[in-house]
Amino acid sequence: MKNDVLSATDGASDISALRINGERLWQSLMDLAQIGATPKGGVCRLTLTDLDRQGRDRVVGWGKDAGLRVAVDKIGNVFMRRAGRNNALAPIVAGSHIDTQPTGGKFDGNFGVLAALEVIRTLNDHRIETAAPVEMVFWTNEEGSRFVPVMMGSGVFAGIFPLDFAYAALDVAGKNVKDELEKIGYVGLQQPGDHPIGAYFEAHIEQGPVLEDENITIGVVRAALGIRWYDCVVTGMESHAGPTPMALRKDALQVATHIMQQVTTIAERFAPDGRGTVGMVQVHPNSRNVVPGSVKFSIDFRNITDDLLDGMDSALKSFIQRLMDESGLTIDLTQASHYPAAPFHPACIDAVRRAARALGYSHRDIVSGAGHDAVYMAGLVPTGMIFIPCKDGISHNEIEYASPEHVAAGANVLLHAVLEQAAAVGQGE
Amino acid sequence: MKNDVLSATDGASDISALRINGERLWQSLMDLAQIGATPKGGVCRLTLTDLDRQGRDRVVGWGKDAGLRVAVDKIGNVFMRRAGRNNALAPIVAGSHIDTQPTGGKFDGNFGVLAALEVIRTLNDHRIETAAPVEMVFWTNEEGSRFVPVMMGSGVFAGIFPLDFAYAALDVAGKNVKDELEKIGYVGLQQPGDHPIGAYFEAHIEQGPVLEDENITIGVVRAALGIRWYDCVVTGMESHAGPTPMALRKDALQVATHIMQQVTTIAERFAPDGRGTVGMVQVHPNSRNVVPGSVKFSIDFRNITDDLLDGMDSALKSFIQRLMDESGLTIDLTQASHYPAAPFHPACIDAVRRAARALGYSHRDIVSGAGHDAVYMAGLVPTGMIFIPCKDGISHNEIEYASPEHVAAGANVLLHAVLEQAAAVGQGE
Repeated sequence: MKNDVLSATDGASDISALRINGERLWQSLMDLAQIGATPKGGVCRLTLTDLDRQGRDRVVGWGKDAGLRVAVDKIGNVFMRRAGRNNALAPIVAGSHIDTQPTGGKFDGNFGVLAALEVIRTLNDHRIETAAPVEMVFWTNEEGSRFVPVMMGSGVFAGIFPLDFAYAALDVAGKNVKDELEKIGYVGLQQPGDHPIGAYFEAHIEQGPVLEDENITIGVVRAALGIRWYDCVVTGMESHAGPTPMALRKDALQVATHIMQQVTTIAERFAPDGRGTVGMVQVHPNSRNVVPGSVKFSIDFRNITDDLLDGMDSALKSFIQRLMDESGLTIDLTQASHYPAAPFHPACIDAVRRAARALGYSHRDIVSGAGHDAVYMAGLVPTGMIFIPCKDGISHNEIEYASPEHVAAGANVLLHAVLEQAAAVGQGE
Repeated sequence: MKNDVLSATDGASDISALRINGERLWQSLMDLAQIGATPKGGVCRLTLTDLDRQGRDRVVGWGKDAGLRVAVDKIGNVFMRRAGRNNALAPIVAGSHIDTQPTGGKFDGNFGVLAALEVIRTLNDHRIETAAPVEMVFWTNEEGSRFVPVMMGSGVFAGIFPLDFAYAALDVAGKNVKDELEKIGYVGLQQPGDHPIGAYFEAHIEQGPVLEDENITIGVVRAALGIRWYDCVVTGMESHAGPTPMALRKDALQVATHIMQQVTTIAERFAPDGRGTVGMVQVHPNSRNVVPGSVKFSIDFRNITDDLLDGMDSALKSFIQRLMDESGLTIDLTQASHYPAAPFHPACIDAVRRAARALGYSHRDIVSGAGHDAVYMAGLVPTGMIFIPCKDGISHNEIEYASPEHVAAGANVLLHAVLEQAAAVGQGE
């Protein structure tokens, strides 16, 4: 059946036996990591810097060597296309980003881009013909560490914010995205979003501890968690730690600790995907012998549906109301940001799960707690993600690590998910 | 009986009818507050600055006008003596300090010094003769905001730390105490500590809310609370707020909040004088979407005896041990400083209480939660303190305020406590 649309013209007729070349993929990852390499083994290749240009040029060079046709859009997203049998079909696209954090690692983003390249190289090696074209993509400025907002290229592509808004973003030196993009030569001709995508796949390190903890090779990502960010300010009365008896205090920190604990209690109640974090705390005046007059802290809630997030929001607000009544202190809660939950497409989720199963890899369903370009894509086109374990769940760090075995496994799953979708799309037309 | 040693030679034979001149005292407070006055109505007269010199010169000038003999010691403590009938007796000394916090008020310290001056002026007005001499004193650098340690002059006097240690203290500009003391002309000839004191009284604003809360005029200070300062560090594992499920977290802040709450629980258990404060918190990395990897915070425990403080210390340590076992996180507790509890002398406490009662002022026993020069004196000579209310319990602040009525009441209590002790000492010899 598959041979109707996927032809192995070199004689290897069994598509299911196809495997990527793990050594070549690993070598490409290590080569790309040389550009902006840090002494501690990480990578600092901030978006739209000259190092980013060198990285982009390297990947584009590899794409051209693989016979791909390059298209760049006005926010600098780069698509590279391997033609299919029917080029009127929307391409199956795989990719991620190659910009890094200031003290980033070799795998975050880069793995997804080079896994897509390796998929295409493998198709070339075996002269596989797909019904739909297959493309790889790298999106501009996913990390957001030089220019905010994060996931800028995919965000403009998906129409989340306008091109001019992204162009105007400034770094700390006052330079803007437009000028910097021009300087590195990556302002393309395509209008962002004006590029057909049949389905989008992104392979990525998990950036969390779940797969490693359970010794599982492949995470079948069902959804990206929705996020609610809040700022909470508790206002009491600053007073001397010595002369002020306990009963006469209005200690903002003591009241704040109850909310901080409630944040995790609520997350645990909205299991299994609820997350609650207080990551940032500012105590005023922050002096050893002064009862804190006010405390400001952040709250980060995540869950798999917006309904569950609404529930967490309500639970937090009623707790705060009760605490305000009991303590007599003022508590202000304001929502700072909000990202809706992004369920991935059942067909793409199934394609990833089927590929992992067929390849014999241990796998489990998982959610993505972090932002990815795939989150914006999910609102636009059928989208799926593949996670592989990363050591100690650590990313955004120079010691970020994924093993060659897991890197190869993730790319093999990507290969077969893409093949299935490229075929399916082909069959569907 | 008292007239054996206290003679009113102007015909007013009833010593108990003596009152200070409240208007004159208030005027002196306002005059002294002009030196270093801040736009918001406070005072910035940091120790050993030229403004401090001007303040010292002003007070010494007033002392000389009152006929006092001035003696300065090598750390710049200034004693001014009104002779008694028997000058072989150790003088009864009253005072405090005149240096202020950078955004200090008009009353902290200054009230105690000028109340002592007013007592002497009153004795002069009525030509009262005391058995023992009466002295006023102002101690160098009580505040510790320019040079640490705090209570430097009284600390050197009491032998808590050596003169050379104090001399070597540096301000943020790298200037040392010795040079700055010479520059303002206040390096005296007396060896610190080599100055007899029969008893020491210090009148002070409460710097807390108790008297105001209960609408009471005079606090009879039984003791200064002992203090234990700790630094506590909870070390967990930094991780992404999104991808890390609740069960796999080692959230340092969540564990820290339980200790923070226990600090106040322990203080409440060691009532009525126990105090427990977490005033300073540093979260690392302090980022909205990162589960805190470590949290450092201060703990301030106070109580009226060292035994009670030992009990609080044990309770804290067993709680932390239990929490460490339960959470699996590392918790380091180190003691940063330690001031023993300083009970005041029964004779001085009684003298203050008797004076308040005789004068018809509402009064209550109270403890001093803050450090004062009187704390070091208490280890050396019979010592007592008199508190008056301050508005909203606020001090170390430009809006610090005590009413003219309370200022006068405190000085009247000081007058009669000093008179009683000057007589008692006289009678004792």
